Amino acid sequence: MPDASDPRLADYTGLRDVELRKSLEAEHGLFIAEGEKVIRRAVSAGYPVRSVLLTRRWTASLADVLDGLGDRVHVVDDDVMEEIAGFPVHRGALASMERRPLPTVTEVLNGTRAGVTAAGGSPPEGAAAGAGAPEEAAPERDAVAPRRVLVLEDLVDHGNVGAIFRCAAALGVEAVVLSPRCADPLYRRSVKVSMGAVFAIPYARMDNWYDGLAGLRAAGFQTLALTPDQSATPLDEVPMAHRVALLLGSEGDGLSSRWLHEADEPVCIPMSPAAMDLGVDSLNVVAAAAIACHGLMRR
Amino acid sequence: MPDASDPRLADYTGLRDVELRKSLEAEHGLFIAEGEKVIRRAVSAGYPVRSVLLTRRWTASLADVLDGLGDRVHVVDDDVMEEIAGFPVHRGALASMERRPLPTVTEVLNGTRAGVTAAGGSPPEGAAAGAGAPEEAAPERDAVAPRRVLVLEDLVDHGNVGAIFRCAAALGVEAVVLSPRCADPLYRRSVKVSMGAVFAIPYARMDNWYDGLAGLRAAGFQTLALTPDQSATPLDEVPMAHRVALLLGSEGDGLSSRWLHEADEPVCIPMSPAAMDLGVDSLNVVAAAAIACHGLMRR
Repeated sequence: MPDASDPRLADYTGLRDVELRKSLEAEHGLFIAEGEKVIRRAVSAGYPVRSVLLTRRWTASLADVLDGLGDRVHVVDDDVMEEIAGFPVHRGALASMERRPLPTVTEVLNGTRAGVTAAGGSPPEGAAAGAGAPEEAAPERDAVAPRRVLVLEDLVDHGNVGAIFRCAAALGVEAVVLSPRCADPLYRRSVKVSMGAVFAIPYARMDNWYDGLAGLRAAGFQTLALTPDQSATPLDEVPMAHRVALLLGSEGDGLSSRWLHEADEPVCIPMSPAAMDLGVDSLNVVAAAAIACHGLMRR
Repeated sequence: MPDASDPRLADYTGLRDVELRKSLEAEHGLFIAEGEKVIRRAVSAGYPVRSVLLTRRWTASLADVLDGLGDRVHVVDDDVMEEIAGFPVHRGALASMERRPLPTVTEVLNGTRAGVTAAGGSPPEGAAAGAGAPEEAAPERDAVAPRRVLVLEDLVDHGNVGAIFRCAAALGVEAVVLSPRCADPLYRRSVKVSMGAVFAIPYARMDNWYDGLAGLRAAGFQTLALTPDQSATPLDEVPMAHRVALLLGSEGDGLSSRWLHEADEPVCIPMSPAAMDLGVDSLNVVAAAAIACHGLMRR
């Protein structure tokens, strides 16, 4: 049984240390999935497993995932797990997974991805819509051009990013686009809070913030900028185009004025007048995202 | 300048330690408000200040709050603050506040509270509705019987309780009722995450879970049980009575079957069919609460 100093466990060292992890994960192109359910979702989504670190009692339930990994399965005691991770790992199993190249924003907006052609508005002849992917396509679920997209500008909190992916996936938003500085959806805490929704919904990262909305417009998306400004049109009342991208700003400052002004229309979630009087006049970004996703999908 | 062992700072010891705090706060009837904005909201809501612990640079901006507190103001260095609290206090100021007796569920549902008579459905003669509280009433904002109420059953996470209060206040829900075992809205983390909304919205705690819904029915509330079960009526489509209480269950298990079956109607937030297929088929309780509060207030 390996101990905490074993070099084969380096992928799992210091999981609480954000800065250490950021450099480690970028350098080695890995991310960490935590707990049986999330590990399974990562595997199902096609991410290759580098290795698994788990305690004895999880070996049975993850047997099929561990099969074929050979000496890349590391069974340790609870205390060694905690020593490596830097905190008690209640879900008892961690997997180090390989990242894959992200699709481009254009690929995500068009519903195309490495080697996959989207059905889009005009499905290829012979491909029955709704009857599964055409034979020649890999089993990617974004093989249809999305109509409802979230765009996250510079969110800093990994938990918030994960929670927003969970809302987006559950409520049927079809893709997410990130600003260049937005927090990483594959960071451990994002993955965990998302319950694996970061694997279920296609996303891409812009390489240019300043002109970031141009690609959305070019793809035919109406851009709605969510703002706490109560003089904006309520989201439930704004006329929506066939393709809609909802822009969500960072936790503290909301959307940049650049994006707010460049968007087609500012929209708001109406607040209670009594709350405004009391100064309790804003929602956190996850609550706002949940209401916004629900609002997008009702239309 | 006091150090960490000073007995006058006992209210602030070990703020990260949930169990220690629970017993300390219950025994001494106190709670902790963190940061200038939240401290101000607690003071405005009428909670008496026991003492304030802060670093030098916050003394100026909180001068009016500190005025008259005399030797109950404790100015310390950052490192002493951290040593006492058990974590870095970024907002630089902590206040120990006295709890007040909670109103009963009946008082909250009727819009009455210690010494305050509600205008309710029949305002006292001469009291102009909407023109402020009648002269004889204390400045309590719950002096009108609520029509939209949240009921939280056994939520265990203080952050979730705080976040839900913030949603409820911002979106105009008028009162909250807690099950006997629901986490404490005045616990430090609840208060912090709520941004002080726990002071802005009247709430009460049931003394009996089993018959907890009887009081709501007696007060004329329609009870809607929020469930992930997609065969329930979507919240946006359910006919709503004049007074509606929405029941939210705990993080893991949702509502108890007792409450689910005793409620007037189960309601759901529709999930994306694609998400159901992928197993990303539920919202966290805060996201669900946000959508539900928004849905309640649109009607």
